[in-house]
Amino acid sequence: MGVLSGGSFFEDVKDHLRTFEFLSDGYWHECRWGKASNKDLGRSLDDWELKVLGCRVLYSWISGAFSSMGQQVQYQGNSVVEISDDFILFQEQVDPFSLVADELAILANRLRSMVVAEVPKLASAAEYFFKMGVEGKRFRPTVLLLMATALNLPSSGPASDGNINMFSTELRTRQQCIAEITEMIHVASLLHDDVLDDADTRRGIGSLNFVMGNKLAVLAGDFLLSRACVALASLKNTEVVSLLATVVEHLVTGETMQMTSTSEQRCSMEYYLQKTHYKTASLISNSCKAIALLAGHTAEVSVLAFEYGKNLGLAFQLIDDVLDFTGTSSSLGKGSLSDIRHGIVTAPILFAIEEFPDLRAVVDRGFENPGDVDLALDYLGNSRGIERTRELATKHASIALATIDSLPVSDDEEVLKSRRALVELTQRVITRKK
Amino acid sequence: MGVLSGGSFFEDVKDHLRTFEFLSDGYWHECRWGKASNKDLGRSLDDWELKVLGCRVLYSWISGAFSSMGQQVQYQGNSVVEISDDFILFQEQVDPFSLVADELAILANRLRSMVVAEVPKLASAAEYFFKMGVEGKRFRPTVLLLMATALNLPSSGPASDGNINMFSTELRTRQQCIAEITEMIHVASLLHDDVLDDADTRRGIGSLNFVMGNKLAVLAGDFLLSRACVALASLKNTEVVSLLATVVEHLVTGETMQMTSTSEQRCSMEYYLQKTHYKTASLISNSCKAIALLAGHTAEVSVLAFEYGKNLGLAFQLIDDVLDFTGTSSSLGKGSLSDIRHGIVTAPILFAIEEFPDLRAVVDRGFENPGDVDLALDYLGNSRGIERTRELATKHASIALATIDSLPVSDDEEVLKSRRALVELTQRVITRKK
Repeated sequence: MGVLSGGSFFEDVKDHLRTFEFLSDGYWHECRWGKASNKDLGRSLDDWELKVLGCRVLYSWISGAFSSMGQQVQYQGNSVVEISDDFILFQEQVDPFSLVADELAILANRLRSMVVAEVPKLASAAEYFFKMGVEGKRFRPTVLLLMATALNLPSSGPASDGNINMFSTELRTRQQCIAEITEMIHVASLLHDDVLDDADTRRGIGSLNFVMGNKLAVLAGDFLLSRACVALASLKNTEVVSLLATVVEHLVTGETMQMTSTSEQRCSMEYYLQKTHYKTASLISNSCKAIALLAGHTAEVSVLAFEYGKNLGLAFQLIDDVLDFTGTSSSLGKGSLSDIRHGIVTAPILFAIEEFPDLRAVVDRGFENPGDVDLALDYLGNSRGIERTRELATKHASIALATIDSLPVSDDEEVLKSRRALVELTQRVITRKK
Repeated sequence: MGVLSGGSFFEDVKDHLRTFEFLSDGYWHECRWGKASNKDLGRSLDDWELKVLGCRVLYSWISGAFSSMGQQVQYQGNSVVEISDDFILFQEQVDPFSLVADELAILANRLRSMVVAEVPKLASAAEYFFKMGVEGKRFRPTVLLLMATALNLPSSGPASDGNINMFSTELRTRQQCIAEITEMIHVASLLHDDVLDDADTRRGIGSLNFVMGNKLAVLAGDFLLSRACVALASLKNTEVVSLLATVVEHLVTGETMQMTSTSEQRCSMEYYLQKTHYKTASLISNSCKAIALLAGHTAEVSVLAFEYGKNLGLAFQLIDDVLDFTGTSSSLGKGSLSDIRHGIVTAPILFAIEEFPDLRAVVDRGFENPGDVDLALDYLGNSRGIERTRELATKHASIALATIDSLPVSDDEEVLKSRRALVELTQRVITRKK
């Protein structure tokens, strides 16, 4: 193994060259290069062909460098490195967000241009959460762009005139549009939710209703929905319009279910899961399906995309519910406890009630007596509520992983990389601490 | 002329029979019947063929019966009756609402079924203004159904398989759907507007925000928009989806323009007309256009439909602005004065400012000083503000009438009847007292 540059190494493996580049934060990056043929390829690679045989962006939480190259690689995290006599097989871990970072940047710019309004106050209100720095994690667009590539099968789409590149670029633009629409619907629902909850902060800044008043927040939400609908119409696919319009209905239904539940419903796991499906999973599942539909996939593949999104969404929310109790620590009560303080009952409490039926009375009075929150935390701490919620989240994550595994076989590196990124994203949803 | 039954007459005119039936409220109805051929057609018509040669529903505000049949007909209102040697030509007046009453009833039922929600509270909120008795005037659906018939030209639509009846039924259902969607968007905007204005009544009952709270009113508005969007998608015409999604954007833009105007903008007629276009005219103009597009009309006809709706909408709002000052009487200050009391400047005041620039100061302070409303009314009373607003409304009404006149020639009785109804509706918009 030779040194290529500061943080990079190269290695001659049989008929090709592998280069490793260490990136920030412990990730690495590998490329395999073909043999050179009289071409100057630069300082340290001048006898190797520039054409990349296979380029793998390998990201892993490695604790150090390779300890014993050729046999075993030290690593941290879930990546497995198998070493055969012929070459090293990496079970690659990719950083989902880095993989689509460039596209996310384009998307962010497009979003800012899509929400431009004629009236200045409406313009400020509509762009509020699309401004640089307060765009959030962009979890949904990331999933959708990865899904778009993960489903990029040679046979997909109505391209029959041989002009596959043109089709593929156009398809990608349409799929990016789904990501943009999804983000607009998401932000619109946040704006209205914050009005309903009288929230004063969001994404580390004042909520729009807090900063510009309820009226502009309601109007800005409506405006984003109408722009989302105009953008949807431009895709000229009425099934997709219908899917995403139904999502808006689901968001409203979920919010109303939470706002208007009876005591019986508040303590029902079935009701909770239905509400969570509407409030969280519907948007990501239906937009994943829209990505598949636009590419002209079979119903079977579309369902797999939908199921991935749905189970990822459910897992995400279940972990969110846990983190509301635990925060970044593993102990109870370190989270923001915002759900319980707003009288909202989530999975950990529902599981705890199964073990301690007396907790039900505390739930029924909406945690309103002094000491009720502490009492509920006591019950929860003595129960398997947190553990069982994590187990349920893991179950949904497993289903999500299984759907990726069930996608049509592909040997395209980009496709496989995006599928690994979706796997990685699913694992992160489960293991995240915030 | 013979007596057919209690309120009906018949008359033998050359080769055909005319029957006149007097309906309630001074309207009449005329049918022309062909000669009979050995058919028993009932009590008083047994020598006349049942097949109607031409059936005209003639509605007019007649003060009495025909005073001198065969020469002149006494009437009240704008209908003109011309009498030639051969037959009587009626410049018919039809009651627009009666003409589509049956269809409006079907539409009302369909709307109630379209807004059914799963969650009980959301269901109550969403159906609130679709319940019997609080459905409003149904002005928009009436215009749209009449427009659909008015544009019913033999050559319209993509029917090429000869199955014109099937196509025509299906087209009508799709056009009814536009009327339903338009009504849903209208009600959704009312729900949100009432939240923004903190209104406590609407259509003679408590506003939804007053009765069920702001939260449910916001959610119900979102829900109606999402159902409207789902229904739109079902029409599978993306141009129509885009048109009506843009309307939602216009409604929001108009509302924001009103809420956030500068002093300069509040006193600008141009700004006022632009705001009125967004808030009132956009919905009816774009939905009229959608009716034309669904029928496969040329761009020229679609523009005529759009212009009719736009100018009718503008005329409607201008008269609304007048009535807010005058109410049912012709004198100032008898209206609800709700605009001026909310600091909203409308056309009459804008015209008055042109004559009395001093009024501008009163407007600039939002009519907030004690006596400001009376002061503004004084200025207005001494100005031609009301008169010029009526003139402007009449101008827009004339343009609306001209568009109907410019529609492709048709000799279909139903088509002509609907066009006359649109003319009548336009006249009523101008002459209405409430």
